[in-house]
Amino acid sequence: MRYRIEVAYLGTSFHGWQFQHGVPTIQGALREALHRLYGEPIDVLGSSRTDAGVHARGQVASFVADDRHTLENIYKALNFHTPPQIVVQRIETVRDDFHPRHASRGKWYRYRIQDSYAPDPLHAWTAAHIKHRLDADAMHAAAQVLVGEHDFSSFRAAGCDASSPVKHLRSIQVQRVGRYSIEVDVRGSSFLKYMVRNLVGSLVDVGRGRRDADWLAGVLEARDRTKAGATAPPEGLTLELIDYPEDPWTVERRATD
Amino acid sequence: MRYRIEVAYLGTSFHGWQFQHGVPTIQGALREALHRLYGEPIDVLGSSRTDAGVHARGQVASFVADDRHTLENIYKALNFHTPPQIVVQRIETVRDDFHPRHASRGKWYRYRIQDSYAPDPLHAWTAAHIKHRLDADAMHAAAQVLVGEHDFSSFRAAGCDASSPVKHLRSIQVQRVGRYSIEVDVRGSSFLKYMVRNLVGSLVDVGRGRRDADWLAGVLEARDRTKAGATAPPEGLTLELIDYPEDPWTVERRATD
Repeated sequence: MRYRIEVAYLGTSFHGWQFQHGVPTIQGALREALHRLYGEPIDVLGSSRTDAGVHARGQVASFVADDRHTLENIYKALNFHTPPQIVVQRIETVRDDFHPRHASRGKWYRYRIQDSYAPDPLHAWTAAHIKHRLDADAMHAAAQVLVGEHDFSSFRAAGCDASSPVKHLRSIQVQRVGRYSIEVDVRGSSFLKYMVRNLVGSLVDVGRGRRDADWLAGVLEARDRTKAGATAPPEGLTLELIDYPEDPWTVERRATD
Repeated sequence: MRYRIEVAYLGTSFHGWQFQHGVPTIQGALREALHRLYGEPIDVLGSSRTDAGVHARGQVASFVADDRHTLENIYKALNFHTPPQIVVQRIETVRDDFHPRHASRGKWYRYRIQDSYAPDPLHAWTAAHIKHRLDADAMHAAAQVLVGEHDFSSFRAAGCDASSPVKHLRSIQVQRVGRYSIEVDVRGSSFLKYMVRNLVGSLVDVGRGRRDADWLAGVLEARDRTKAGATAPPEGLTLELIDYPEDPWTVERRATD
C-alpha cells in the first residue's frame, strides 16, 4: 500500500527535512516512527526538503507499507512516536503512482517578520526579528518585478542541485498584519535552494530604505548571487501549503479530527 | 526616580513571575538585568504574579533607581541583559506614588486552546492542546453565569492569599477563531490563584459535552473547589493587558519603536 501523509512541524530544533546521520531531522523522525510501528525500516519520500530551522504546516510525504494497520492506527502511532514538534495532520491511502514531488503543482511559503526593537516573545520561534522599522508597501511594490518566469541565479544558494535556475514565481505579497508584524507570501511552481529567504533578505534592504525597486530589478537582471542582499534567517519561514491537482490518487482518507 | 515598564514574556521555561532562589523567574531575570546596569541590587515590583509556564504581553512593573541613565539606554540595556523570551516593550518615568498593582483597574487574560488530535505545532508553546473537539458556543453560553460579582471559592487554588474569594468578573467570551483553535477571553478587576485556569478547566468539560450549563451554575454556587473541573494547563494562558486609568503618573515615555 502507498500512504500519503500531511505533516506540520516547528523546525527550530531540527536540521531540516532531509535525513542526516547523527542529527535530528524531520525525515529521520518519521522514519524512526515508522520503524517502531512496523518493526522494519521504511523510507519516507518528502515533497519539499525544507532547510534547517524552517517550519511547515503543509509538508506532504509518502511511504509504502503492508496493510496490517488501519489508517486510524497509523495516524495515532505516528503522532505518538514523533516528537511533539512534529504532527501528522492527515493520512490517506493513494494509488501507487503518487509521487509527492512530481505530483505537486506549486507551493506557498509565508515569511513572518517582527520589525520592532522589542519583538513579541510569543512569536519568537516563528518570526524573524528585524530591529528596524520596515516599509511594507515599498517592499510589496518592489517585489512585483520578481513575478513571472525568470532566471533566479541571483537568489540561488551555493550547492543548489536544481537543473535550471529558471523558475516561475506566481505571486509575492508583502503586507503589514499587525503593528510590528509583516507577512511575505510567496507562491510559485518550485523554488531554488534558499530562494525565498534570499528574496526576503533583499526585500528587507528595500524595506529599510537602503535599496530601492530599481536596485532589486538590477539584482534579478544580474544573475549573480553576490549582487543580492543577505539570506534571511530560517525561523521566519514556513512552508504553508503544497498544491496538488484535486488528489485523484486518494483511495481512503483519515483526517485530523 | 520611579520607572514603569511593560514586559512581555514567553513563560514556558520560567517558574512564573515571582523571584525564587535557584530557578529562573521573570522577576529574577529583571532584577539581574537591573543589577548589571546599575551595579547594585534593585528590586522590581510586578502588577501580577503570573504562574509557572504562563505568558504575558502586558505585564507592568516598576522600580526605583537614580537618574544616571536615559530612558533609551535603560530600555536597550534591559532588553540586552534579559533572555530573549523576556522583552521590555516600553519604559517611562512615573510619579513616585505609582504602584503597579494598586493602580490597576483590571486585567484581561486570554486562554488559547487547540482542539484537534493533531495540533498545529507552530502554536505548541502558546496554546493548550485538548485532543477532543469542543463546542465553543456551549462553553460561551454556560460561562455567562460566571459574569458579575461572585464568591469564586470553587475556582480558587489551595495556597491563595487573597483576603476574600469574592471577585468581580466583567466578561467571559469563548469563540472559535480557527478550524481547530478556540480563544477564551476573561476580563475582571482581579483574580484568585489559578482562577482563570480553573474556570477554563470546567468550561472544557462543558465543551466536551460531559457537563452542562446547569452543572457550572451549581459548581459556582457550591463554593467548593472539589466540585469544579481540573486546572487547565499553564501554556494556554497569557496575561494580555492590565488596565490603568489614563496613566496620570507618566512623566516621560520611551515606547517600543
